[in-house]
Amino acid sequence: SKTYKIAILPGDGTGPEVIREGIKIIETVAKKNDFKLDFTDYDLGGKRYLKTGEILPDSVTEEFKKFDAMYLGAIGHPDVKPGILERGILLKLRFELDQYINLRPVKLYPNVETPLKDKKPEDIDMIIVRENTEGLYTGAGGFLKKDTPQEVAIQESINTRFGVERCIRYAFKLTQNRAKNNKLTLCGKTNVLTYASDLWQRTFNAVAKEYLQLTSDYVNVDAACMWFVKNPEWFDVVVTDNLFGDIITDLAAIIQGGMGIAAGGNINPEGVSMFEPMGGSAPKYTGLNIINPIATINAGAMMLETIGESKAAKDIDNAVIKALGSGKIKSMSAGKMGLSTTEVGDLIASLI
Amino acid sequence: SKTYKIAILPGDGTGPEVIREGIKIIETVAKKNDFKLDFTDYDLGGKRYLKTGEILPDSVTEEFKKFDAMYLGAIGHPDVKPGILERGILLKLRFELDQYINLRPVKLYPNVETPLKDKKPEDIDMIIVRENTEGLYTGAGGFLKKDTPQEVAIQESINTRFGVERCIRYAFKLTQNRAKNNKLTLCGKTNVLTYASDLWQRTFNAVAKEYLQLTSDYVNVDAACMWFVKNPEWFDVVVTDNLFGDIITDLAAIIQGGMGIAAGGNINPEGVSMFEPMGGSAPKYTGLNIINPIATINAGAMMLETIGESKAAKDIDNAVIKALGSGKIKSMSAGKMGLSTTEVGDLIASLI
Ligand SMILES: CC(C)[C@H](C(=O)O)[C@@H](O)C(=O)O
Ligand SMILES: CC(C)[C@H](C(=O)O)[C@@H](O)C(=O)O
Repeated sequence: SKTYKIAILPGDGTGPEVIREGIKIIETVAKKNDFKLDFTDYDLGGKRYLKTGEILPDSVTEEFKKFDAMYLGAIGHPDVKPGILERGILLKLRFELDQYINLRPVKLYPNVETPLKDKKPEDIDMIIVRENTEGLYTGAGGFLKKDTPQEVAIQESINTRFGVERCIRYAFKLTQNRAKNNKLTLCGKTNVLTYASDLWQRTFNAVAKEYLQLTSDYVNVDAACMWFVKNPEWFDVVVTDNLFGDIITDLAAIIQGGMGIAAGGNINPEGVSMFEPMGGSAPKYTGLNIINPIATINAGAMMLETIGESKAAKDIDNAVIKALGSGKIKSMSAGKMGLSTTEVGDLIASLI
Repeated sequence: SKTYKIAILPGDGTGPEVIREGIKIIETVAKKNDFKLDFTDYDLGGKRYLKTGEILPDSVTEEFKKFDAMYLGAIGHPDVKPGILERGILLKLRFELDQYINLRPVKLYPNVETPLKDKKPEDIDMIIVRENTEGLYTGAGGFLKKDTPQEVAIQESINTRFGVERCIRYAFKLTQNRAKNNKLTLCGKTNVLTYASDLWQRTFNAVAKEYLQLTSDYVNVDAACMWFVKNPEWFDVVVTDNLFGDIITDLAAIIQGGMGIAAGGNINPEGVSMFEPMGGSAPKYTGLNIINPIATINAGAMMLETIGESKAAKDIDNAVIKALGSGKIKSMSAGKMGLSTTEVGDLIASLI
């Protein structure tokens, strides 16, 4: 039977608690589906940085390339200045490992509460494909006359045809394989970003010609935020740049029930990919065994799907749906689940 | 009695229909409050562009400077390529007339339906202050190797201490004059936009020292979108850059009940300001007398407030609240109001 090497990055705060349940679940489906998982732990994050001053050694990034996948809890520490860990670990991994797709399935599960009126599971079911290595995330830019009244701060969005096209091609392929409407919507701001969004639109239109059986669509990012709230059922697959993706995936997470359930993947289709819950390290809940592990469990399912174990991924998804359908989990919010973190993990494991 | 010179820009589509009701209302309160309004019509927009090829002559922009305010219906035509009119009229006016504040009061009126569960009028009551002349809206950037596989598209966000500071100062002053929580929240993306958002944050922190009696707060734009939907009651005044402002004001418009009710001002506190409904020209409803004029009427109230007729502005606001409270207007959406555009205007006029 096959063995997959998985790098585990439990991280900070409640990261280790959710990753523990995630591992419980993927081990359960591995046994059932007759494959093996070989875990290696990596201690990265704020705690380690505060102790050793080390953020992410280059040698570690190199090591990750030898794994089949990476599984992350959460990175973030209240005593570390915002930006250091995000850029030093999360964004660095995306860039160095060329994880050029950020994949965010957005699905309202049965019994999960959305803050939107009158929306049912069939109304909220889309996938967002976010470019993950370019745009305003490159860090390009600079200051002129810093700290004077004449200061100018410039931030540059850099977009390449190469980077945009591989992302759009990924999105079209994904759309073709979806059951739903088979519609791909490009989200941009063409009426204002006359260079960046123009490249996106030209590339989108060119690739669309190879997928004439699919519906191709365009929406401005400001309008997209409105329709996500008012008519989420209009969307099937959405493709967008790095910053717009950051914004609309968080909005999408809240409409699908919040950080307790939203999972994402940083994907390099030709290399190693990393899977994570969308929530942060939630310092105030650390060690209390009350954080929701379902997002991490969903990320585990995405991971297995990506490494080729679709049946096992489906088993997790079915067990999550059954667990939610049982009504035993009262809320998606930390401390309000009616069950502990461990009990939610056990419940899902028992349904596999 | 005082006379104010108002430039009227009815524009395209349903623009003339809503501006007609807006004029009806501001004339009614002018009579009541003993001041005069002197209107001059300007024919700008897609219809004119298609007929004459002219978008916005420089001489017209110059003329606008002599007015006390500008009142806009809507610009946008289905036969004109997206971007031309937006950049050629709307954005050009903002830049040339240095309307450096985009002001968006966000208020859930009684009897207006929000798409959010369990939110009442007291939960949705904030003001968004958007910088309106800098950032990614400058049009700076370019292409390298355009239309080749090696193409690079760069879009630049340019931010000056001068532009950021005047916007932040405006927001602090506004916050001080608000009854609510007296909290100003800066919305940015400091963990990624290390130049642009950094300038914003340093400037914000510096000005905050002059307003120690107010609460100053920070939120990342992605999180802001989540909290607008989940906990809009957390916000009082929000200040942000041009592009983030574009996104969060549209999201805010939908949670307050949509384009039928959302109004905004493009404000030059030392010059001429322009007021408008947030919705577009809604071509498919043109001429049917079924579009909702309330957003335009609200924009009229903002206009009177800004030129110094606060009492008249308050009269409009009260009449709108009474009209909505009457239950006679069934929905905020075009064609579903249960009344015509004219009837909604008449109803509000009758309540002044
Ligand atoms: C932590 C932060 C740098 C990151 C981003 O902005 O991409 C996060 O918000 C995300 O969406 O994964
Ligand atoms: C029409 C468009 C250029 C404009 C903008 O992006 O600012 C609009 O969306 C707005 O918010 O006023």
